[in-house]
Amino acid sequence: MALVVQKYGGSSVGDAERIKRVAERIVAARKAGDDVVVVVSAMGDTTDELLDLAHQVSPLPPGRELDMLLTAGERISMALLAMAIHNLGYEARSYTGSQAGVLTTSVHGKARIIDVTPGRLQGALNEGAVAIVAGFQGVSQDTKDITTLGRGGSDTTAVALAAALNADVCEIYTDVDGIFTADPRIVPNARHIKQITYEEMLELAACGAKVLHLRSVEYARRAQLPIHVRSSYSLNTGTMVTGSMEEPAVEQALITGVAHDRSEAKITVVGVPDEPGAAARIFETVASAEINLDMIVQNVSTEGTGRTDISFTLPKTDGPTAMAALSKIQEPVKFKGLLYDDHVGKVSLIGAGMRSHPGVAANFFAALGEAGVNIEMISTSEIRVSVVCRDTDLDAAVRAVHDAFDLGGTEEAVVYAGTGR
Amino acid sequence: MALVVQKYGGSSVGDAERIKRVAERIVAARKAGDDVVVVVSAMGDTTDELLDLAHQVSPLPPGRELDMLLTAGERISMALLAMAIHNLGYEARSYTGSQAGVLTTSVHGKARIIDVTPGRLQGALNEGAVAIVAGFQGVSQDTKDITTLGRGGSDTTAVALAAALNADVCEIYTDVDGIFTADPRIVPNARHIKQITYEEMLELAACGAKVLHLRSVEYARRAQLPIHVRSSYSLNTGTMVTGSMEEPAVEQALITGVAHDRSEAKITVVGVPDEPGAAARIFETVASAEINLDMIVQNVSTEGTGRTDISFTLPKTDGPTAMAALSKIQEPVKFKGLLYDDHVGKVSLIGAGMRSHPGVAANFFAALGEAGVNIEMISTSEIRVSVVCRDTDLDAAVRAVHDAFDLGGTEEAVVYAGTGR
Repeated sequence: MALVVQKYGGSSVGDAERIKRVAERIVAARKAGDDVVVVVSAMGDTTDELLDLAHQVSPLPPGRELDMLLTAGERISMALLAMAIHNLGYEARSYTGSQAGVLTTSVHGKARIIDVTPGRLQGALNEGAVAIVAGFQGVSQDTKDITTLGRGGSDTTAVALAAALNADVCEIYTDVDGIFTADPRIVPNARHIKQITYEEMLELAACGAKVLHLRSVEYARRAQLPIHVRSSYSLNTGTMVTGSMEEPAVEQALITGVAHDRSEAKITVVGVPDEPGAAARIFETVASAEINLDMIVQNVSTEGTGRTDISFTLPKTDGPTAMAALSKIQEPVKFKGLLYDDHVGKVSLIGAGMRSHPGVAANFFAALGEAGVNIEMISTSEIRVSVVCRDTDLDAAVRAVHDAFDLGGTEEAVVYAGTGR
Repeated sequence: MALVVQKYGGSSVGDAERIKRVAERIVAARKAGDDVVVVVSAMGDTTDELLDLAHQVSPLPPGRELDMLLTAGERISMALLAMAIHNLGYEARSYTGSQAGVLTTSVHGKARIIDVTPGRLQGALNEGAVAIVAGFQGVSQDTKDITTLGRGGSDTTAVALAAALNADVCEIYTDVDGIFTADPRIVPNARHIKQITYEEMLELAACGAKVLHLRSVEYARRAQLPIHVRSSYSLNTGTMVTGSMEEPAVEQALITGVAHDRSEAKITVVGVPDEPGAAARIFETVASAEINLDMIVQNVSTEGTGRTDISFTLPKTDGPTAMAALSKIQEPVKFKGLLYDDHVGKVSLIGAGMRSHPGVAANFFAALGEAGVNIEMISTSEIRVSVVCRDTDLDAAVRAVHDAFDLGGTEEAVVYAGTGR
């Protein structure tokens, strides 16, 4: 008998019919003898509808109240799911993040999990009940206020609970059969990946693969907890994300897949004085606005001018905040101007042993060049190479790279309805 | 500086515009120097929509999960109201029933308040914030599960918090300017009542006046807390519900008003053996189904048959449960049959000193007779006389009694849109 934590996203519980189908799936696991804890997101568009209501009463709603409002969404879906399980003759109890013992920092909208004290869940399991937990939410350890974990928060809730309960596996249900060598919507013959390491998955997630959120993978790696990414629309085995591959890797570059990202914008700070402290001042300013930068490029100082340009990418949603913060330091730092570009895309190749196999990067750039993709920024790591290009070139870039490394399978990948999140 | 608890019903916060208007009203009280605690119901039809969802996934949803689901409603309205107050430049914090310290019994859907520990509300007030509290909900002292208080629960929340915080007054906002001598929708010249005692208000509420819920009046009487029932659509003074009248009552019957109720059904148990224990068995059966009876009439045993009929009224919503429970004891108790009638109405005359003024009852029955209203059941108390009649006769009965006691004023009462609950 295993202990399984299952996470279902908003589209999996989008209406009463889907909730009933998820309930059947959970009951099947119970019948198979497993103890089950379920983490659930808000139904379909509930979160967007609540946000819309919030903006009708206030242009800048306070974070504490926004979190209070949004957490109503999971409360609805989890109670309905518990009812649907009851209706199938099995005991189920729903718990808010706070009741489930998800203790967080106090940063509303972006709280981080500090500790998990799942005593009530353990009690429910001991009595044979399925425990249903609201994803995405917790309670501040200091202020006792309700918090939310930000984007992808439900994945993180699931992994954190699985780790705290010492679960055998954390199953993340989505709309595809797991992780593929590229997005099957762009590359129809993308190959299904049976097993992937935390490190590769981290790079994939950081490079825009939407199936698993970065933070949940970081959490799973720390806890050495296996994640099983699978479809809520089929019974197929999905992708196992684990610490090490079962088959020992041979000494050659192992390409995992191609990831892409349309969610970033590029800011260029033009004419920065080439003197100590100028760049630091710029990055401190962005960091103190709680914005995470991704790629950073600094041009070589143009000879004689004593000035340079600094470009970086960041989430589009943080663009306006960053531009406002930077324009305030234009005078003291004495840079010449700011450029904002939100028509960029990023394509990344991920795989182990990439740096020690120089042919990989060469092949990557050659494929992009042949496809006529102009490269604007480059960044590399031990297991990844990424470039920024025009967003209109992105699909062609993904297909070109996927082909160049022979990643395609012989079958078309199945993409199910909805987004699974 | 006074401490005021204000309660707004679902139609007062039915959409973003109304929420903003309520926020302005609350801010006006803050500007006037008062400390304000606000109790709020779910927006408009939210509760019905959630119930509908519940019945889509399960015909008989478990009480614990139903309470978890329904309490999402107030969570939404209270967070939006706090945002709207923020937007007007004032500090506001929303609290669930659990956070506000509303401790209850564990009976889901019908929990009763055991204790109120408003430490967090007091803290918010001390820091100059408006505290917004979810009505209708609490947390079970034993199981720590979320509970709801049942019909009229938000009124009870408001009075309980006001008592615990030692507030100066509890203001209940509704869609009329307070209590009238009859429902102004039926009797257009019904007179506004400036002040009324707890006892009279209890009888009015028990007899179907919808403005204040019975339990909240009982709670206020125990705490000797003044309630101000007033309109959320005007600034007029409403009706004060207090312990004793400011002007000493003269020694004559003081008629308070006429109440009516369409929410009850009548059950008749036919042919009950006229022997000890039979009636007790019937009422025990109904009580153990957690159903409150209202009026009870037992006919004189028909001579020679050794059998009698027992009729009682009860909330229509409890009708099917009561009929099912009673049919199970038909064989052991040996009664002949059950009749169910949900086309009854109840009209009541309420006023102090009624029993010591026999002319009052005589006048009451004469008025009904002249209006052609057939009386099916009668019940009286120290300050009330009630009759059950056909529901189609109810409006005529209310008007006839109101006229017979000269209760009308010279102006038409103003009824605002919505129901105020």
